[in-house]
Amino acid sequence: MKRRPCRPTSRSSLIERLAAAGCRTIEAGSFVSPKWVPRMADTAEVLSRISRVSGVSYPVLVPNMKGLEAAIAAQCDEIAVFASASEAFSQRNINCSISESLDRFAPVLATARDHGIRVRGYVSCVLGCPYQGAVDAKEVASVSRRLFEAGCYEISLGDTIGTGTPFAAIRMVETVAENVPVERLALHFHDTYGQALANIYACLGLGVSVVDAAVGGIGGCPYAKGATGNVATEDLVYMLKGMDVETGIDLSQLIDAAQFISEKLGKSPNSHLACSLDRV
Amino acid sequence: MKRRPCRPTSRSSLIERLAAAGCRTIEAGSFVSPKWVPRMADTAEVLSRISRVSGVSYPVLVPNMKGLEAAIAAQCDEIAVFASASEAFSQRNINCSISESLDRFAPVLATARDHGIRVRGYVSCVLGCPYQGAVDAKEVASVSRRLFEAGCYEISLGDTIGTGTPFAAIRMVETVAENVPVERLALHFHDTYGQALANIYACLGLGVSVVDAAVGGIGGCPYAKGATGNVATEDLVYMLKGMDVETGIDLSQLIDAAQFISEKLGKSPNSHLACSLDRV
Repeated sequence: MKRRPCRPTSRSSLIERLAAAGCRTIEAGSFVSPKWVPRMADTAEVLSRISRVSGVSYPVLVPNMKGLEAAIAAQCDEIAVFASASEAFSQRNINCSISESLDRFAPVLATARDHGIRVRGYVSCVLGCPYQGAVDAKEVASVSRRLFEAGCYEISLGDTIGTGTPFAAIRMVETVAENVPVERLALHFHDTYGQALANIYACLGLGVSVVDAAVGGIGGCPYAKGATGNVATEDLVYMLKGMDVETGIDLSQLIDAAQFISEKLGKSPNSHLACSLDRV
Repeated sequence: MKRRPCRPTSRSSLIERLAAAGCRTIEAGSFVSPKWVPRMADTAEVLSRISRVSGVSYPVLVPNMKGLEAAIAAQCDEIAVFASASEAFSQRNINCSISESLDRFAPVLATARDHGIRVRGYVSCVLGCPYQGAVDAKEVASVSRRLFEAGCYEISLGDTIGTGTPFAAIRMVETVAENVPVERLALHFHDTYGQALANIYACLGLGVSVVDAAVGGIGGCPYAKGATGNVATEDLVYMLKGMDVETGIDLSQLIDAAQFISEKLGKSPNSHLACSLDRV
């Protein structure tokens, strides 16, 4: 298959399919500079095309006030800001130190609050950094705490390059949970080395109940070479269903959505479930 | 890449690379009827080509006395017999009932013992069957116990179609461990639905310390349509290293072996590690 860029109509159709499958939070894009991430240039168009479903949240990533203004114009009810637990990654990804990035978010959070917009905080490189290698869990905890105290309702802990393994993941989450209530933490594990589901399973035992995932395992990170997408939503939902954890998501419709977007992108789903069903 | 059958020289070279990487048990083939599994017809030739390393075991699968005779002629020091926890799969895979298969193994085990050959027992479909669906853990325990009592030194519990999830895997292993000492159990999880590492991580907590895996995730099962190979050895070793579990295996050499055999087979490795390193 020939790889293709994803058109706004395909992205809005994907989002609607995910809502129909039962997903209650669907990250819909980002209002970042098209100079840095050209693929996200049409997020406003995507949002305008979605028939929004009551009870479903469609957050967007926002790096600064300009992004927030675009999110407000697009009638977003939730945004996400993103900091890093790695100084080196912070510099490469958002061109400033960790501390500067947190200072920059302060007015964004204040204005969002004034507009009744919920703010989620991402922390990247929580189990390793492509530039500096090891990342101290205490640094993850410190950044998480600052985002939480600044008003983020939830902190998503991102293993951006997927190098984490279960015991390291447990130790990291435990350290963060000493600083931010565990019920305010989310897991965000990329599956680059196939460890995501094992890490998630390990951390669910600590009381975390929110897990980020990407339908069809699509995605990656333009600032982390070789990184693949988040763990595939359908592989995660399959595991949770097997564990009698209620997600409210219809697995069959979810797999259809994975196959829909993979076809639009001209690539195979990076998901065991969608691929296995193809084979059978 | 064009898919190719694997020549005996490639198979023996792979086995030698795995031994050099530090693998201490390398299943080298099977003495089954070439009428049923044509790809294994040259196992004797493969074994004859290997420069055997002291301390490394090269077991082969053996379904009956004829297979055992071939294994003795090939100077094998270990064989494996295979039964199923599913009646339906037993009929399709080895053309007899579970009970008949166990009766058939009795003389094989006795003769192997007379020749100082260790015998391992496989139980397939421990977490589901492609023909009958659900499989009762008590059935798995019963077959495992009979194989153990018949003289198998270790029982490998195979999730042949990879449908298992962590809690189900734990319940199954706990049930079997009431019948066979847990230190005599091994995990054998196919990764069809991406659950293998999570299942393995979950079951390691029960005290199991032997895990089967396939370099490059190669393999499958000719009697389970759509089944992919065992969990990739390199993905497993990566997880175990991260957990400070000593395997004695050099990850870099292991990945080289995965890439070697994948190239010989004309297909991409079914492994996150080997693929990710390609991408970086």
